[in-house]
Amino acid sequence: MHIADGTPLTAGELKRIDAYWRAANYLSVGQIYLMNNPLLREPLRPEDVKPRLLGHWGTTPGLNLLYAHLSRIIAGRGQDLIYVTGPGHGGPGLVANAWLEGTYSEVYPRVSRDAAGMARLFKQFSFPGGIPSHVAPETPGSIHEGGELGYSLSHAYGAALDNPDLVVACVVGDGEAETGPLATSWHSNKFLDPARDGAVLPILHLNGYKIANPTVLARIGDDELDALLTGYGYRPYLVEGNDPAAVHQLLAATLDEIFDEIARIQRGAREDGVDQRPKWPMIVLRTPKGWTGPREVDGVPVEGTWRAHQVPLSAARDDAEHLEMLERWMRSYRPEELFDADGVPMASVVDWLPVGESRMSANPHANGGRVPRDLELPDFRGYAVKPGEVAEATRVLGGYLRDVMSANEPYRNFRVVGPDETESNRLGAVLDVTDKVWQGGIAPVDQHLGRHGRVMEMLSEHTCQGWLEGYLLTGRHGLFSCYEAFVHIVDSMVNQHAKWLKVTRHLAWRKPIPSLNYLLTSHVWRQDHNGFSHQDPGFIDHVVNKKAEVVRVYLPPDSNTLLSVADHCLRSRNYVNVIVAGKQPAPTWLDAHEAEMHCTRGLGIWDWASTDHGEPDVVLAAAGDVPTMEVLAAADLLRRELPDLRVRVVNVVDLMRLEPDTEHPHGLPDAEFDAIFTTDKPVIFAYHGYPWLIHRLTYRRTNHHSIHVRGYKEEGTTTTPFDMLVLNDMDRYHLVIDVIDRVPGLARRAASLRQQMVDKRAEHRAYVRETGEDLPEVRDWRWPDRG
Amino acid sequence: MHIADGTPLTAGELKRIDAYWRAANYLSVGQIYLMNNPLLREPLRPEDVKPRLLGHWGTTPGLNLLYAHLSRIIAGRGQDLIYVTGPGHGGPGLVANAWLEGTYSEVYPRVSRDAAGMARLFKQFSFPGGIPSHVAPETPGSIHEGGELGYSLSHAYGAALDNPDLVVACVVGDGEAETGPLATSWHSNKFLDPARDGAVLPILHLNGYKIANPTVLARIGDDELDALLTGYGYRPYLVEGNDPAAVHQLLAATLDEIFDEIARIQRGAREDGVDQRPKWPMIVLRTPKGWTGPREVDGVPVEGTWRAHQVPLSAARDDAEHLEMLERWMRSYRPEELFDADGVPMASVVDWLPVGESRMSANPHANGGRVPRDLELPDFRGYAVKPGEVAEATRVLGGYLRDVMSANEPYRNFRVVGPDETESNRLGAVLDVTDKVWQGGIAPVDQHLGRHGRVMEMLSEHTCQGWLEGYLLTGRHGLFSCYEAFVHIVDSMVNQHAKWLKVTRHLAWRKPIPSLNYLLTSHVWRQDHNGFSHQDPGFIDHVVNKKAEVVRVYLPPDSNTLLSVADHCLRSRNYVNVIVAGKQPAPTWLDAHEAEMHCTRGLGIWDWASTDHGEPDVVLAAAGDVPTMEVLAAADLLRRELPDLRVRVVNVVDLMRLEPDTEHPHGLPDAEFDAIFTTDKPVIFAYHGYPWLIHRLTYRRTNHHSIHVRGYKEEGTTTTPFDMLVLNDMDRYHLVIDVIDRVPGLARRAASLRQQMVDKRAEHRAYVRETGEDLPEVRDWRWPDRG
Repeated sequence: MHIADGTPLTAGELKRIDAYWRAANYLSVGQIYLMNNPLLREPLRPEDVKPRLLGHWGTTPGLNLLYAHLSRIIAGRGQDLIYVTGPGHGGPGLVANAWLEGTYSEVYPRVSRDAAGMARLFKQFSFPGGIPSHVAPETPGSIHEGGELGYSLSHAYGAALDNPDLVVACVVGDGEAETGPLATSWHSNKFLDPARDGAVLPILHLNGYKIANPTVLARIGDDELDALLTGYGYRPYLVEGNDPAAVHQLLAATLDEIFDEIARIQRGAREDGVDQRPKWPMIVLRTPKGWTGPREVDGVPVEGTWRAHQVPLSAARDDAEHLEMLERWMRSYRPEELFDADGVPMASVVDWLPVGESRMSANPHANGGRVPRDLELPDFRGYAVKPGEVAEATRVLGGYLRDVMSANEPYRNFRVVGPDETESNRLGAVLDVTDKVWQGGIAPVDQHLGRHGRVMEMLSEHTCQGWLEGYLLTGRHGLFSCYEAFVHIVDSMVNQHAKWLKVTRHLAWRKPIPSLNYLLTSHVWRQDHNGFSHQDPGFIDHVVNKKAEVVRVYLPPDSNTLLSVADHCLRSRNYVNVIVAGKQPAPTWLDAHEAEMHCTRGLGIWDWASTDHGEPDVVLAAAGDVPTMEVLAAADLLRRELPDLRVRVVNVVDLMRLEPDTEHPHGLPDAEFDAIFTTDKPVIFAYHGYPWLIHRLTYRRTNHHSIHVRGYKEEGTTTTPFDMLVLNDMDRYHLVIDVIDRVPGLARRAASLRQQMVDKRAEHRAYVRETGEDLPEVRDWRWPDRG
Repeated sequence: MHIADGTPLTAGELKRIDAYWRAANYLSVGQIYLMNNPLLREPLRPEDVKPRLLGHWGTTPGLNLLYAHLSRIIAGRGQDLIYVTGPGHGGPGLVANAWLEGTYSEVYPRVSRDAAGMARLFKQFSFPGGIPSHVAPETPGSIHEGGELGYSLSHAYGAALDNPDLVVACVVGDGEAETGPLATSWHSNKFLDPARDGAVLPILHLNGYKIANPTVLARIGDDELDALLTGYGYRPYLVEGNDPAAVHQLLAATLDEIFDEIARIQRGAREDGVDQRPKWPMIVLRTPKGWTGPREVDGVPVEGTWRAHQVPLSAARDDAEHLEMLERWMRSYRPEELFDADGVPMASVVDWLPVGESRMSANPHANGGRVPRDLELPDFRGYAVKPGEVAEATRVLGGYLRDVMSANEPYRNFRVVGPDETESNRLGAVLDVTDKVWQGGIAPVDQHLGRHGRVMEMLSEHTCQGWLEGYLLTGRHGLFSCYEAFVHIVDSMVNQHAKWLKVTRHLAWRKPIPSLNYLLTSHVWRQDHNGFSHQDPGFIDHVVNKKAEVVRVYLPPDSNTLLSVADHCLRSRNYVNVIVAGKQPAPTWLDAHEAEMHCTRGLGIWDWASTDHGEPDVVLAAAGDVPTMEVLAAADLLRRELPDLRVRVVNVVDLMRLEPDTEHPHGLPDAEFDAIFTTDKPVIFAYHGYPWLIHRLTYRRTNHHSIHVRGYKEEGTTTTPFDMLVLNDMDRYHLVIDVIDRVPGLARRAASLRQQMVDKRAEHRAYVRETGEDLPEVRDWRWPDRG
């Protein structure tokens, strides 16, 4: 690993940066422990200490050190820079810095930059009615809470994309570095364009321990660590030490060298036409865990060990010795040199800091909603397919997305991400106007790879998600296209993003950011070729557990409704939008106008397919493209075979319409629901996913006891598309059987039709096993004037 | 990268290994394309070709090459070896090899090792009623389907643990290598004990392309790749080429050297007392994607590009030129030299293969249920806590697990895994009898680290899960302890494991394997210190979407019920058992006998807490430890304040009891459900997780419309435990309000009590914000003789 030379700090600079660091450390300890007596004007008493000590000291001094030195870089070079905190439990550190910079008091005036404010600052931390322990949305300057570990670096890269003047400093904890998502996100440097994107400065904070164990990377030796980081494509600099003055000099020298190097790389790519992937610099910072805290407590080592992870003096309120050690510890920062009589930071401590929006805590990039530019969106109706035409919905969408890409090219604010599937998901038209970004070697046979592409593909759903989140959190737009089954890989990431959105909705100073848009395709019903492991529609169930104000789920039944839904989602803010749509050839049911109306309503009766004249005997409902096809085929069968049966066909595109309006902002009022689904007629509901979700959404509705749902019941393998439906009893024949079994009086009258349906299913099974294909009458079925 | 010397294969050996490889390739192509004419005895006709071509050719020749050479190692050295296929879509390859070895026909006699069997072998692949396209449970010798990418290497390490004589060869696709879980699982070598575990031989198959893109690792240059793999702690060998004869010699030479090296490492650790972590050998195999397939199709390059990923001749049935190319391709393997007139493999092709259980397709380790040893389990009643005593449930369990660990030490068949939390989850007692395994550097200050430990901690839920799955799939036992919120990180992995179990239940030759046991602790209600990002009880919702026959969910209300549930789960087979239990001090409600009875029933009326005398006015139900506490506190309030109200207290420990018995094997028959929950009385149900799950499980029950559920509704932050309940309206005071609001006639009679409850909630809020602590009367509440 490279070690920088020189001692760039003058005595005065060294003194002031150290003072700033001590101030940040003092304020961090104060937040963890104190509810009174913030400036230690009185001897510390037990009742000054919080009764429940909740917080994490171990990572905090390192975070504060970096913050101080990055502030020096910003102030000295006018560098645009934000700070991503991987070890997000170091919350007190980031809050302390925001307070020292003045941002905190600007955002939360009650927490003023004086003694009274400091008292509030301390008490509120991890305290009921106060603020969380992590670098949460409440923390100015944060785009990354760091609660669940693994995503700091992909967030940082997402933030740097298309922000050519920005450097994103990203602290990666050595605990977090063990996670899978983090381990692969180092490779993001193969997707960062030095000409048009900003830079990411990863800082691996090797403080050696997790909660109870050493970290892997701290115990593999410097040779292996150097090889690993070099193998990831970086040029690592080592900053190691436990003497503050020496570390200040070394870190300052290192950052000076690194920021020169970043500038050189960018100049090379931007001015000198360098086309080689650069070896971006990074830092390995090896300082003691809990540095400057108590060395030993109760006779065992604390500083530099896992015991410093949370609260080193756990009994400070009840144990006199702990209390005395706490006071000694806090006084070791010499608060009297740092804060004046009014508790205001001394000028010398803070007068060298960056000001205004240059402060990391006030950088507009870290409040991405502040000035988000709306996307330029072409009129989606112009891409519509004629009703009756067979089309691949995602391919139709691809044409629209191509033009969204073009229209926004001047603003560089739209990206499409996905593991390896933009083309296989039939969105390939976007590659007519942009490339897949690729900084690695490009071979003559390769297609659509380029240094400046706006499509991002890496076979890591985690990294795709992380990039996109970082991009959205800094105010830009995007779409994640993913195999439906494998989007579960990012279940926990979408949890965290949804939680972030939920909190920010209640923070007035955080402006809405563009929505996180998923296109889930290659879905459960058409993974007939990859089989059971690729069949899972449960992501919808997962997201609807999140707050109703954040989550939207759309199941467009055809190409035109997909266009309308996509247009809507790309305009929206602060949601997680899940769109499920197939990529296989399928009929188009609605024209552009009908599609728009249907999507606006979210669900509705399809009169053209119904025979109920307002008085149905049965409701056939569908949500999802394949279920819609089966419901229509069943309706077609019924109108031919039982012409006097009054069948109402209902289609649901916005799943949240099924919930009561008391539960979800999109929920349909009960009266409207009853008008559509009736209060007492049998409803046969063919649903894209696990059937019980429909029950969950509708259990409060009047007619709930009559709703009978077909869906995916975890039966599948490598087989034909129609066989998938038969395996799960959602095929047209079974839907007809369901109708016969549930409409009063029909069992006898339609006994022979029922038997026909049973026979049809048997005929299908025999045919498909013999030929490997579905029955022609199934494959070729069309609604007379629509399919 | 190291390149082995020598040409160890004699001309005869070279000829026979190449013939075997050609046979495997021929059979692989045949499976993808043909439904007739398997031996090409007739010119190929369109109708011989399947109508839907579903399969993946690209990875297959490489998989077959490795299989052939590993067979040589097994035959030559008597090596015990299994094969893990990361690129699981290479299913035809592994099936072909199992057929050539004879195993396939032993397991599936209809698919005999002759012409008729070959015809069936071909037709069944990716065909309705046949077998899946992947290395699925149906494939003999597989413990890894490889459908969702990322877990091959952690599975391989899990299989190698405690199998000192076994080598697990693990092919990692370069696509899979981009995933997060795979990227960190390389570090598993820091947890593999060379003395007592077997070895893993990772083979990075660098065939250069995914579905549509080059792979990252194929385009970073050999220097970075070498550094990366060295940094991961391996000694990489490069095997590169596209001339089969040369590659055969180089691969043979490399494997000879590597198996010598593995033997040397193991001897060192086992006999010579070497205590240094070894640099295990691994292979980088760089051969063309779709090697030996069509070079060009329709004028564009195929072999060696992403176009070879799936079916290179996609129109073989409809396009005469494709058909002719397919025939030429298949004949290029010279089938007439490989199979005799009856379609039986020529003796010379297969007579050198390993036999019996030495065949990779028949290795008993890869059918882990074949001879699983039951765990020795101490009587859990001996660890029980006295009712009324306050205990930390997981700490009590820790004592039991310590003795499970000891009792099974002679058999080395039990492991506890978790990210970093065995001690913080209060299971630390196990460390009295074993260590946390650690092959990295150990510092004097470290505790409980050792080379042979049976507790495995790495801050990667993915790796923990992968290790444990590999361990279970090879017939051993374990427990995964995890923070509840972050177990979502492995949502998709548990999906895949549950799907595997579902399929194996219907394969008689696959014997049941030990269950996958989760202990979810540090759960949603007690993440008051880490805040909102750590609060998510949705894993339960996720797993109950899987097949009922596979999934079990337990919510033991106290220490003794936790013991009983754990005992039950550790004895079980083929389930995913989810146990949710807190680690904080809490009262013990049931004695050991009561606990066992209650867990056996799964749910029941707690008479001692009820005042209903068989005729309740209201049912207060709870599932989960914290909800149980609140329900009892509410019942206590009610019996004091409204002594004539008849309250029935019900506790649910086995969540699946709520489902109808038609839906889940544990489901309670309706009559029993009605007897407990009544058919018409209000039920106030306090549930650990998202409330709607209870509705989903009970919507078919008679009294469903009267069930009112409280649970986590996604409200939380860093606050006190009781405040978490208040934020989500599940506190005792709100439960009393719910009772008053729902029992007919109570509203007026209990109006003042209701107001008291409202006031209590307000009092709590004020108190907690002032003091940071919960009201003493809440903290100190105990059931008179039980808490």
